Amino acid sequence: MREVAILGIGQTKFGELWDRSFREIGIEAGFAALQEAKLSSKDISALYLGNMASGSFIEQEHIAPLILDYAGLAGHHLPAIRVEAGGASGAVALHQAYLAVASGAHDYVVVGGAEKMTDVPEDVQTDIANASADQEWETVFGATLPSLWALIARRHMHDHGTRREDFARFPVLAHEMGSKNPLAHFRNKVSLDQVLEGSPVAQPLGVMDCAPASDGASALVLGPLEKAREHTDTPIRICASQVACDTLALQHRKDITTVEATRLAAQVAFRHAKRTPADVQVAEIHDAYSISALLALEDLGFCPKGGVGKALAEGTVGPPGARLAINSSGGLKAQGQPFGAVGVAQVAEVVRQLRGEAKERQVAGAQVGLTHNLGGTGATSVVHLLERAT
Amino acid sequence: MREVAILGIGQTKFGELWDRSFREIGIEAGFAALQEAKLSSKDISALYLGNMASGSFIEQEHIAPLILDYAGLAGHHLPAIRVEAGGASGAVALHQAYLAVASGAHDYVVVGGAEKMTDVPEDVQTDIANASADQEWETVFGATLPSLWALIARRHMHDHGTRREDFARFPVLAHEMGSKNPLAHFRNKVSLDQVLEGSPVAQPLGVMDCAPASDGASALVLGPLEKAREHTDTPIRICASQVACDTLALQHRKDITTVEATRLAAQVAFRHAKRTPADVQVAEIHDAYSISALLALEDLGFCPKGGVGKALAEGTVGPPGARLAINSSGGLKAQGQPFGAVGVAQVAEVVRQLRGEAKERQVAGAQVGLTHNLGGTGATSVVHLLERAT
Repeated sequence: MREVAILGIGQTKFGELWDRSFREIGIEAGFAALQEAKLSSKDISALYLGNMASGSFIEQEHIAPLILDYAGLAGHHLPAIRVEAGGASGAVALHQAYLAVASGAHDYVVVGGAEKMTDVPEDVQTDIANASADQEWETVFGATLPSLWALIARRHMHDHGTRREDFARFPVLAHEMGSKNPLAHFRNKVSLDQVLEGSPVAQPLGVMDCAPASDGASALVLGPLEKAREHTDTPIRICASQVACDTLALQHRKDITTVEATRLAAQVAFRHAKRTPADVQVAEIHDAYSISALLALEDLGFCPKGGVGKALAEGTVGPPGARLAINSSGGLKAQGQPFGAVGVAQVAEVVRQLRGEAKERQVAGAQVGLTHNLGGTGATSVVHLLERAT
Repeated sequence: MREVAILGIGQTKFGELWDRSFREIGIEAGFAALQEAKLSSKDISALYLGNMASGSFIEQEHIAPLILDYAGLAGHHLPAIRVEAGGASGAVALHQAYLAVASGAHDYVVVGGAEKMTDVPEDVQTDIANASADQEWETVFGATLPSLWALIARRHMHDHGTRREDFARFPVLAHEMGSKNPLAHFRNKVSLDQVLEGSPVAQPLGVMDCAPASDGASALVLGPLEKAREHTDTPIRICASQVACDTLALQHRKDITTVEATRLAAQVAFRHAKRTPADVQVAEIHDAYSISALLALEDLGFCPKGGVGKALAEGTVGPPGARLAINSSGGLKAQGQPFGAVGVAQVAEVVRQLRGEAKERQVAGAQVGLTHNLGGTGATSVVHLLERAT
């Protein structure tokens, strides 16, 4: 398997894009990434597209050839393939695109992630989001994703002495970073009190603990590392791409305070890249819920079990300047959460950081970055490790 | 890239399986394929699952880890990845699984296709099926898949002198073969008159020109060819796996009487395998509509443009015994059409034929087989070439 580099990134604004269609945002992100990579659409030989639920959101399946079509590539011989893994659809699409280039099956590949979520009413959004949990064991009985994450939070508080404030700090950080990201869905800052006093969704989680439904698209161009310098002065190497899975239903897990799929994916990713968590300076982690970010830091190996609150309070984990900078994009909470786009956008942000192009969000001297993308309550977890190619 | 073989196949009955859940049929097919390949689920290192619209049909996305979970593989380090490409979802999943083994990324991989379609009313089935056509240019104005294929049929009759009887012969053949297939949705025979006199759906297509909505699952185990003899006495080599795409909307195509994606996929597949259409004795082609089967025979290179009617009437193409035997399974029309399962089930039937295990459907001396799986009106087309490994 050969080395793979990211040659270009593209991303639309995230938010309520009521005046833009799915296909419009899809090609905007893709073309931007191609332009950065100094490639035209004719140079690519495959498209992978991460999307969770376009059939339910916009009554349109079969969306990968749709985007290919609008990119002017219909009727050429190349595959356009949609990949779905709940909220992890984007990173799983990247995993497939990575394999396509690493194996030599394709040279230049576009991977996109896109979701158009805000054209349906909020109760429908909730129903669609729930489809990444277990329909027969969970959602049919009225469980929702926030209520399942609330169970996890309660158990974590019980087992590990975690306090409400420990995970309430994540949305504060997310909005602070979102205020510096022109592509972010939310650009307002929020205080710890505003998070703690937010309307309850599923206690202990309030409205500010939950990432929004957003529209948006993001894209990357991948190519073989040995040709990367022809396309960019700052190629970013993918040092590991790992997907692991666990039970869909929470009740079937041994311990719901650990996302085993994240633990496994991270373990193998670090081994594969010959790195440790201590090597990472910048990470985008899956904060669909504040508590999911807390578990991520533990399961990825950045903090000991029950140690996240302390790390955040002491600033060893936090905004740029911390030993580990997390979610400089604003994360899912503030940058936004277009399901299928999240995993791709996380990588785009880490690429900006490793290139030194993150402007007022820049993490000084970032050399190694990590992304962590989750589906549902963790039945799919995807970890990518990235570094500046020397 | 190394050679890839099919080591095992599995398939549920196709039909209205109201007493069986999606997860049940998914694991039944997967376990059957593993058993044939003398493997346990612990031996596989990835799962690819083709499915078009589980979110809309059964309110469940994120289905690849669900099937992995029920196969007893939750919490192990392996990826479970769902792939969607309308009615071509199954064959595109196979394409991904093929690349996974060919590249050396994985040794043993299960590829499944599954769809549970009959738990929703028929008008909802129609709406969901339409999601593989173009929502903004076609279905929003009331066009349905059969009406789009009817446009294609009319144009083919106008441009190439095709007669109604020329494509009406396909359902007759399909039901004759379905009557010999214990897994088929429909096992009754039908006459040419019954097809011609069927209630109109979108003229010239009647109800008997249209494949049904079905429940069902199918699965394959893939592995490296050099290890195949450890698992089976009759390994089947995948000599080509090609995906091509075209515009989603019919109106954007130069000529709607040709599915350009099929033509391209077949051309490259034959070149890749160093074969010609004349080398093929057995093929499963995508007869979601009788007219789609007619176009397939032309676009795959089996018949000249406008020559299909003659070939069927003269018996050079037809049931076992013809120079080219097509849809010995009963095809989508009689074996059934669980969207995501179709592309995998087509391959399972060709494997039975190449092994010599197709019983009363057996094509004598079958050495090379082809499968052709389509999404929508041909925005995705997938061609596989298979042969007995010597």
